[in-house]
Amino acid sequence: MKLLVPTSLPLHPVLPEGVEAIAYDASAPVPDEHLAADALVVWGSSGADLATVAGRMPRLRWVQTLAAGPDVVLGAGFPDDVVVTAGTGLHDRPVTEHALALVLALVRRLPAAAAAQRRHHWAEELGGLQPLHPEGAVTTLLGARVLIWGFGSIGQTLAPLLHGLGARVSGVARTAGERSGFRVVAERDVDAELAATDVLVMILPATTTTRDALDAGRLAALPPHALVVNVGRGSTVDEPALVAALDEGRIAGAALDVTAEEPLPADSPLWEARNLLLTPHAAGGRPVGADELVAANVAALLAGRELRNVVER
Amino acid sequence: MKLLVPTSLPLHPVLPEGVEAIAYDASAPVPDEHLAADALVVWGSSGADLATVAGRMPRLRWVQTLAAGPDVVLGAGFPDDVVVTAGTGLHDRPVTEHALALVLALVRRLPAAAAAQRRHHWAEELGGLQPLHPEGAVTTLLGARVLIWGFGSIGQTLAPLLHGLGARVSGVARTAGERSGFRVVAERDVDAELAATDVLVMILPATTTTRDALDAGRLAALPPHALVVNVGRGSTVDEPALVAALDEGRIAGAALDVTAEEPLPADSPLWEARNLLLTPHAAGGRPVGADELVAANVAALLAGRELRNVVER
Repeated sequence: MKLLVPTSLPLHPVLPEGVEAIAYDASAPVPDEHLAADALVVWGSSGADLATVAGRMPRLRWVQTLAAGPDVVLGAGFPDDVVVTAGTGLHDRPVTEHALALVLALVRRLPAAAAAQRRHHWAEELGGLQPLHPEGAVTTLLGARVLIWGFGSIGQTLAPLLHGLGARVSGVARTAGERSGFRVVAERDVDAELAATDVLVMILPATTTTRDALDAGRLAALPPHALVVNVGRGSTVDEPALVAALDEGRIAGAALDVTAEEPLPADSPLWEARNLLLTPHAAGGRPVGADELVAANVAALLAGRELRNVVER
Repeated sequence: MKLLVPTSLPLHPVLPEGVEAIAYDASAPVPDEHLAADALVVWGSSGADLATVAGRMPRLRWVQTLAAGPDVVLGAGFPDDVVVTAGTGLHDRPVTEHALALVLALVRRLPAAAAAQRRHHWAEELGGLQPLHPEGAVTTLLGARVLIWGFGSIGQTLAPLLHGLGARVSGVARTAGERSGFRVVAERDVDAELAATDVLVMILPATTTTRDALDAGRLAALPPHALVVNVGRGSTVDEPALVAALDEGRIAGAALDVTAEEPLPADSPLWEARNLLLTPHAAGGRPVGADELVAANVAALLAGRELRNVVER
């Protein structure tokens, strides 16, 4: 069995006898001499480069993307009998850390502090003696109602940390119930949650059904003190509606790690939106545990067992 | 028994029969007609206003400050037989939250992202595919060695959250040992820890022995990728030495919520120090659980039991 592994990260899975790992450059299509490989690990390849080879790998049985979202691989056109597995879990901890950084930056008003710092201004209004819960603002997670829309493995990693900081956390997922000890509401009922949400964290994948999930109507349902963080995919937020809600003060602030178009064009209104914090798709990008996942799935493939993180399609 | 309570926060302790709570304005000295009170709760009074009355309250037995650090009350000159109790514990959660916000902002490079945002620049160097542990930089708490200098109730509240984010946390306190499950080294041994510290969190009180605890020599002992956060008291950091270490790239970044002089003068070099994030003493300032502490200490005083948070002096 020949396994193609990208050079875009240090990857050293423990492989059984008979499995040959062949390195390829992820910044170009897989070269012709390697198209007979049985399996392909993807990290950082462009959709175009994948599409170039997707129909030209006759022995290909399995594609493992290390990304949490398999959208790029799914869009490349691999034959239906090729099993696609996602990097679910590999990004839980880095994305959780970044999401928490963004939530806390908004709640603790770090952008306002930074603006004051640039003016050499000691912002008494941000410090000193403060009410714990000032009228019309969320300035602590203590008692804050946090809704995590997209309650998969990242959301369930983030939730206990927010809970540990005193937040009241609920999730939104396809089906209602309780997961990891947290209340989960079904996606079709999300609208009813928004008015009682202080902090909305979006961790949705890019699919046809999640496009503009946070639209003008749902933004309008949030209270004016609400804060919004998106560490999922940019396509899930209606960006013009978000800019309008921010600029008109209909929500209090937002932080986006992802945008509909990346890199974000220099003339995008997002750059200057009021109380919007932007990071350049920096939440993930550094898989943790990729060696173990690849090794486990190689073993499963050889043994004819079900692989981990198989993507339904 | 007459208990003076400040109007600087909403305070409604449950008090036993016979205890009269009298409100006073914390932005002025206690007025003459209330100087016969038995007990005084302090929140936000200036040292000067306290000094004005400290020797003129003949029946005063107890002063409860709601601040974590009793330095202002201790400096006011109350007679030695007046028991002083501190607000230990009341600020654990708000200060922990702010400290975590500052640590994560530095680790996840939010100031650099904000600077790029002002230039409408999608900073590829901060996002996309990244090594988990790049050479010469700390960009995640996963595996990071965090040293919390001042391992009291705030430090012990912060430590589990950092641990939950994957950091390897140690504390520094007067005596070595293990506290809350974390390794604690003695203050006299702190120098030996610094070279192996990625993130140093300072939560020291202002005392004569903590002045300039983080001085030029100790800053030099930190590795060049080290990040420093101070949510204790400003006097514990040698600020000119910190500015020099930052500007010369001998440490990677810092965040100060407290400064030696507050408000920080507009001409302080701190405002423009390289990779320094400043917040205006915003970590605490909002006691959580003050009603319960005051009520418990009133009950203890009446019963002749030892009060909570008695300050040795």
